[in-house]
Order: sequence, then C-alpha cells, then structure tokens
Amino acid sequence: MAKEQQFVSQIADIESDFPQWYSDVVLKTKLVDYGPVKGTMVIRPYGYAIWENIQKELDKRFKETGHENAYFPLLIPMSFMTKEAEHVEGFAPEVAVVTHAGGEKLAEPLCIRPTSETIIGTMYGKWIQSYRDLPVLMNQWANVMRWEKTTRPFLRTSEFLWQEGHTVHATEEEAMEETMKMLSVYEEFAKTCLSMPVLTGRKTEKEKFAGAVATFGMEAMMHDGKSLQAGTSHYLGQNFSKAFEIKFLDKDGVQKYAFTTSWGVSTRLIGALIMTHGDQRGLVMPPVVAPVQAVIVPIASKKEGVLEACTALKERLQKAGVRVVLDDTDNSPGWKFNEWEMKGVPVRIELGPRDIEAGKMTVCRRDTLEKGELPLENAEEGVRALLHEIAENMYAAAKKRMEQRIVDAVTLDELLNGVNRGNFVRAGWCGCRECEDKVKEFAQATARVYAKEDTAKTCVACGKKSAHTIVFARAY
Amino acid sequence: MAKEQQFVSQIADIESDFPQWYSDVVLKTKLVDYGPVKGTMVIRPYGYAIWENIQKELDKRFKETGHENAYFPLLIPMSFMTKEAEHVEGFAPEVAVVTHAGGEKLAEPLCIRPTSETIIGTMYGKWIQSYRDLPVLMNQWANVMRWEKTTRPFLRTSEFLWQEGHTVHATEEEAMEETMKMLSVYEEFAKTCLSMPVLTGRKTEKEKFAGAVATFGMEAMMHDGKSLQAGTSHYLGQNFSKAFEIKFLDKDGVQKYAFTTSWGVSTRLIGALIMTHGDQRGLVMPPVVAPVQAVIVPIASKKEGVLEACTALKERLQKAGVRVVLDDTDNSPGWKFNEWEMKGVPVRIELGPRDIEAGKMTVCRRDTLEKGELPLENAEEGVRALLHEIAENMYAAAKKRMEQRIVDAVTLDELLNGVNRGNFVRAGWCGCRECEDKVKEFAQATARVYAKEDTAKTCVACGKKSAHTIVFARAY
Repeated sequence: MAKEQQFVSQIADIESDFPQWYSDVVLKTKLVDYGPVKGTMVIRPYGYAIWENIQKELDKRFKETGHENAYFPLLIPMSFMTKEAEHVEGFAPEVAVVTHAGGEKLAEPLCIRPTSETIIGTMYGKWIQSYRDLPVLMNQWANVMRWEKTTRPFLRTSEFLWQEGHTVHATEEEAMEETMKMLSVYEEFAKTCLSMPVLTGRKTEKEKFAGAVATFGMEAMMHDGKSLQAGTSHYLGQNFSKAFEIKFLDKDGVQKYAFTTSWGVSTRLIGALIMTHGDQRGLVMPPVVAPVQAVIVPIASKKEGVLEACTALKERLQKAGVRVVLDDTDNSPGWKFNEWEMKGVPVRIELGPRDIEAGKMTVCRRDTLEKGELPLENAEEGVRALLHEIAENMYAAAKKRMEQRIVDAVTLDELLNGVNRGNFVRAGWCGCRECEDKVKEFAQATARVYAKEDTAKTCVACGKKSAHTIVFARAY
Repeated sequence: MAKEQQFVSQIADIESDFPQWYSDVVLKTKLVDYGPVKGTMVIRPYGYAIWENIQKELDKRFKETGHENAYFPLLIPMSFMTKEAEHVEGFAPEVAVVTHAGGEKLAEPLCIRPTSETIIGTMYGKWIQSYRDLPVLMNQWANVMRWEKTTRPFLRTSEFLWQEGHTVHATEEEAMEETMKMLSVYEEFAKTCLSMPVLTGRKTEKEKFAGAVATFGMEAMMHDGKSLQAGTSHYLGQNFSKAFEIKFLDKDGVQKYAFTTSWGVSTRLIGALIMTHGDQRGLVMPPVVAPVQAVIVPIASKKEGVLEACTALKERLQKAGVRVVLDDTDNSPGWKFNEWEMKGVPVRIELGPRDIEAGKMTVCRRDTLEKGELPLENAEEGVRALLHEIAENMYAAAKKRMEQRIVDAVTLDELLNGVNRGNFVRAGWCGCRECEDKVKEFAQATARVYAKEDTAKTCVACGKKSAHTIVFARAY
C-alpha cells in the first residue's frame, strides 16, 4: 500500500490545485508532452488515440449529414486575411508569418492558417457559378496556428488539430439551418461519445467569431466550475461571400451573393473530457473514445492456466470489438491497478485461479470504482453492456453536477459570489457592451451563451430592463 | 456521338502530350485545383476521398505491424535542422521559414517541417532511457512543406500530405529489419490497393535521403515510361541518435546510441496511380481506393419502375459495402457514360426496363471497357467479384507493361536509346559518383534502384568492371 500511496501522491490535489492536477495528469499518463517551441505540444500515442476516436465518430456524423472532406493549403497570402475587416482584426495579432522560403525572401508574406475562411472562400468564389452548384458542404481535418501568450496542453496551444466545416447555401434560411444542425451534431456527439453535457446557445457580439453574423457555441463545465468552449458553429451571412465574391446565378436569372457557415471542434475536446471527468486518481475516460476500454490484470499470473485464460479472454473481447489490453508485465497487480486507474481505463478485469475455477471475472469500473463479478461465459456481452452503462452513468453524473451548479443572480455581488464558488451564473443583461465589460472586470466572468429562456428581469450590471438572460462564467 | 467526341477531346492526347493530359485529367475530374500560393494545391473532395482510402488501408497495416500514431509540432527551430550535417544540407534550401508570430519578430527563426526526424529525434532523446523503452514504433499523418521551383499537383507541391514513420531500436539488425519490413508493407499495399506494380531496392548514395545510412525505395513506371518514386524507407543507423542524443541503458548496463529508421509515402501516390492506369478517356481508378466503385446509370429513367429499381439496387450494393452512386441527374445516358468514364469509376451499371424485365443488369468495366451482363438477383456478389477481378487485371496489365519496358544496356548510347523509348534501363555501374553524373548528363536519367541481381559486367559510363547493376530511368 505504501507504493500505492506514493503513486497517487504524484498527482496534485484536484480540489486545491486543479491547474497542477491537470498538468500532472496529462504528462504522467503520457497523453502529451511540451514541444520544443514555446506553446506547442506533442500529442503522444495515448492522447492521439483519443483524437483518432473523436475523428472517427465525428467524421461519420459529418458524412451522414452530407459533408465531404477536402484539403486546403496551410499558407494564406496576408492580403486574403484583410478582405474581411472584422476577421483580420480578430486574427491578425495571432498569426505566424512566413517571410522566407526556398532560400529567398517572399514577395508577399504568407500566414499559417489560424482558420481557413479566407482561403476556402477564395476557392469557393472560383468554383461556384450557379444555384446548381449549391449547397457546397465541405469539411477539412487540419492543423491550425494561433500564437497565444499563455498556453496549456490541449486547452490553448499555438498549434492545434481540428476540423473546420465550411458550407455555402443559396438562402439565409438554409445557412441558418446548417449552422444549427452542426451545433446539434456537436451536442449529440459530446453526449454520446464524450459523456459530456454541454450548454448550447448563441454568443454575444463580443464573444462571437471574428467575421460572423452570429456564433453558436457549446460550453462544458469543468471540474473547477469554469467553462470551456468546446465547439462553435458560425452563421457567416454574406460577410465572407461579399469579401470573396462567392456569387451564383439563381434560378430567377439573378446573380446573388451566397450565404456561408463554418463550424469547428479541436483537440481542445481532449482537455474538456479530462477536466469534466477526471478525479484524484487521474483520468476517467469516456468509454466511446477511450484508447483502451478494458484492461485485463492477471492475478497470481505464474499459476498454471492464468495467463492462458487471460489471453483467451483478451482475444474474445478483441474480436467483439472491445479495445482491450492484457497487462502481462512483471509489475505487481497493485501497481497495475494504480497505473490503469490513472490512465482512466473504464473497465479493469481481474482474472485469477479462483475466478477461473468459478467461471467468472472480477470487474472494477473506473467511474464509480465499484467492484463486481461477471460470468466468463458471455464476457463479450457483459463487458460491452458495462461500457455502455459507464458511458451513460458518466454523462448523468456530469449533467447532475452541472445542473446543480447553475445558479441565478440579480446583482453583481451575487454573480461574483456564484462564480467564486465555481458556478455558472444566469443573470439579466441589458444588451450593451459596457455592462458586459463591467461583469468581466468585476467578476472575471464572461458571457458564455444566451440562456435558453429569458427569465431575468433586470441587467445584472446596470439594473435597467434585461433584454437577454445570459449564462456567465469564468472560462478557459 | 458528337457530344461524346467533344467531351473526350477536352483531354489532351495521352501519347503525344502526356503532361497536358495529366493536367487536364486532374483538373477536369475535380481531383485537385491550384492553390492561390504558387506551388500549392487544393485537394478537392474527389481527390481527398482517394487519400482517405489510402490512409485507411495503410493505417491498418501500420497498426497490424505494431505502430502507434502520434502528432509532433509543425514548427521546428532552425537550430535543430543543423544538428545532422547531411540532413541540413539536403533540406535547408527547401524550407519555409517563420520569422514573425503574434505580432513580434521571433528570437529564433522556425522552419515548417520538411520532414520530422529532427523534432521527433529530440523528443525520443528525452523519452527513451532504457532498453525497456525500446522499440519505439510511431507514425504520424501530417502536412509537410518543401519549397520547390517546379511543381505539379500531387507529384511535387510545396505543401503535401504524407505519413512518416519513425522508429527506434536497440540494435542495427532490428532497425534494418524494420526498414525492410515497411518497404515490403508499401510494396504489398501498392499491389493490393493501387493495383500498381513497383520495383523496390536500395538507392545510391546520391539519391538517398539526406542523413540516412541507406535508403530503399519503390519505383513505379508511369504511362510515359518515366519512373516515379512512390515511397521510401530509410535505415538511419546512429546518425540521428548521435545528433539528438537518443541513448539507452542496455541490459548489459552500458549506455548506447540507438538505431533509428524512418519511412514515408505521400499524396504523390495519387499522382502515381493516375499516371499508371489512366487512358485517353481519363482516370482509371484502382477499385480498392476508388472514391466511387460503381455508378448506376438509369436507362429510360422516366419509364415506370426504373428509378425505383435503380434506388433499390443502390441500397443493396451500399449495404454490401460497395461505394456506389446513382446518377439520377437530367443528363443523357451518353453524357453520363463519358463523365463517369473520365472519373475512372471501375464499374458502370446500366439499368433500363429491358434489363429489369430480364432480371439482369448491364455492366461495363472501366479497365477493359468490356460490356457484359450480371444477374440482378445476386448483384452484391457479382459486383464485388467484378471489382476484385478489375483490381487484379489492372495490376497484371500494369506489371506486364512494366516488365516489357525494362531493357538492358551496355553503352551510354543504348541507355539513352532505352530511356528515349520510355523504358527503364538496367545497366552496369562501377560505383563512382562521376559515372552516375555522366549518365544523368548524357541521358537525363538517374539511378532509381539497385537491381535485384547483378547481371551487368561493365559500367555503362566508364566501361570498367561493374560493381552494381542499376535500374536507370528518367523520373518525376
């Protein structure tokens, strides 16, 4: 037990030092490492496997909703960035710039994409001629670069991996429908695959994407009660189609500017699931995207038949589509328990001589740490059902936590009090930028989304009539 | 027929102007478009779908051989590049350099990875301590950048997509075994998935990867008889482990430098399959990676029951795992035939009232343009078997072409004659750089690989005793 305690103690206390807990967990479980250039990360195999599972699940959903993948260049001429006024204002301070290539100074500096509206818009302007070419529904999986001052692995890094959907439509209605459809795809994905509840809703002018008419986001509540923007879907109206001449000849013979959308999620989602589900022992992986869903730990592995039984079980589970590892290393079972708990593997299976004799296996679930038994005979079914139950339980538990921590406030003091206690705070807002800034200044909280219902009567900052009820929170 | 001729005539003549044929085909079939920055390409959905299929097939093979995916940063400090002397000499002239980011000039310029040995080597040096940490078997799917003077979509672009495997081993033998294993994985993949025969073998010092001890490549013969390097596997010895301090404490208690390998294929493979199989009508897609494997063209589609039967067939084929499209647009069947032939879809299915009545479908295979009939009843089996047959036939035909066009030469004149006729030319080589350069100068041909057997007696350039038999060719 001494060893166990030593092991667990390597992780900082989750309640008193959540930032250090996060760093400890992501580094010690080998999800990620710091890259040599400040602000960059190396995604190690255990972390990248999560991203692969996220990609697989999302990509399936994108294709089912009619989208095709494509790939656009990394480098964007600086002049493209300036075509949409708000867009350049938002992104120019963060871009990395290529000035030299092939041993020569470039005639025009090129920026590494911070997002691809400008270069994709340019190509769409070239490709789209007629209403027959619409809608255009494309997505790209790519790396992007935003030079940030303060960075943390997965949450904010200068380079990150993401997908960006870019669509073009003949009408405003269609484009709005697409914007909301992809937001709901994200929400369903977060629930089903990450066991992560989210609040969705429109963002304020201040918080919206640079160049969008309206941004809709999904916000997830982290362990410390702060909010993490986990995905966004933008209705871009005709802003980009006018900047990039995305025009089409409509059925009525009239040349019109198209309506566009864009939407994206990134490797940030990995940070989100860690900070939603993690506990003092380390990671708690949502089963659907867990790199390893079940680990088999042999008990008294030198006894005759134990390793053979473990191997046979592993092969059966593998065949049934379970991502399973058999830990047949020389470490003690106790050491292995800690290691795999820290790595957050949803199901641990212990198999020893007594289990084998009794035709059962001991199972321990990572979410509740409860131990139980399952018959060996239909282990495939049992493990799959358990994984499913864990996914649902993790979602339900996180949802309950989140709902309990959404409170209402009428005054700024109440709002400050709420966020200090790690809550999301619902409060009224008159709609003016000054009041939004005042909340930020007073409580270091920002408007995350418009609440689903307008329940507030007065603005939390100025006391005048409330135009919108807003969910405020401190945010990553 | 006037329309058909007009259509086909949009593609340049494949025999007299192969470069123009290539440009016409890749642009008109919407595989790709030129990006706004010179030398860049936009991979459009029809092209990207090929890459997705290539990725899926290769990734499966990498994982089956024990490799894990990871992701390393795009930007590499310039100082890393200079740590391996040959490496920097080879790549420095081609790198794109980031000098500014976040509105400031960077203290050290960063280069966009042209390949990742240096940054991955740095991380391996940090991670690897003991023989217990070995082997390390990682792969990364990523974009890379090499600033080239002359570019062509897929074949040579400043940015391209690829995978790069990077492995570390305790011994030279293991590293060599890995190098050859991945070369054979590539060869088997090219055969099975691209229906593309290749010549594999070691490269000369002049042609090897900058920093490798030995490079092994696979070369494919294009329609014009030129060679295309379609993949490489490098044995790096201790060159990079010494430059990046990749050391481990061995079982015998001694600190040792590890042995590393790297291997990669890229979006170039798409260019390779186009130029291996294409004909005057356009693309001929190898079935395994074809974005669309079968297209259904309704005949007399306004007649009762035709569209319904086509839709039912489409659904059945889809369920059976065939990537199938039903072309129910307003275009004429003749127009559709041309369109889908140009796009290289392996199987075209025509379904009209007479077919339906007779319980059959008319099928036309793209590789031989032969028409035949298949019973509707077990269409799934029939189409799958046909796709398999097409894949095998395409490979056999390409292999026969290649073998017929490998000739032997004793003198430089014979060698020049051979490559002028679009052949690969096997000839002797004394082993000196001057003679290799002389062949290049005289015949614009380069040493592609060492031949499997040393059959030549004298060096084709100097007439002295031949040390190696080399396959020379003009190359992309």
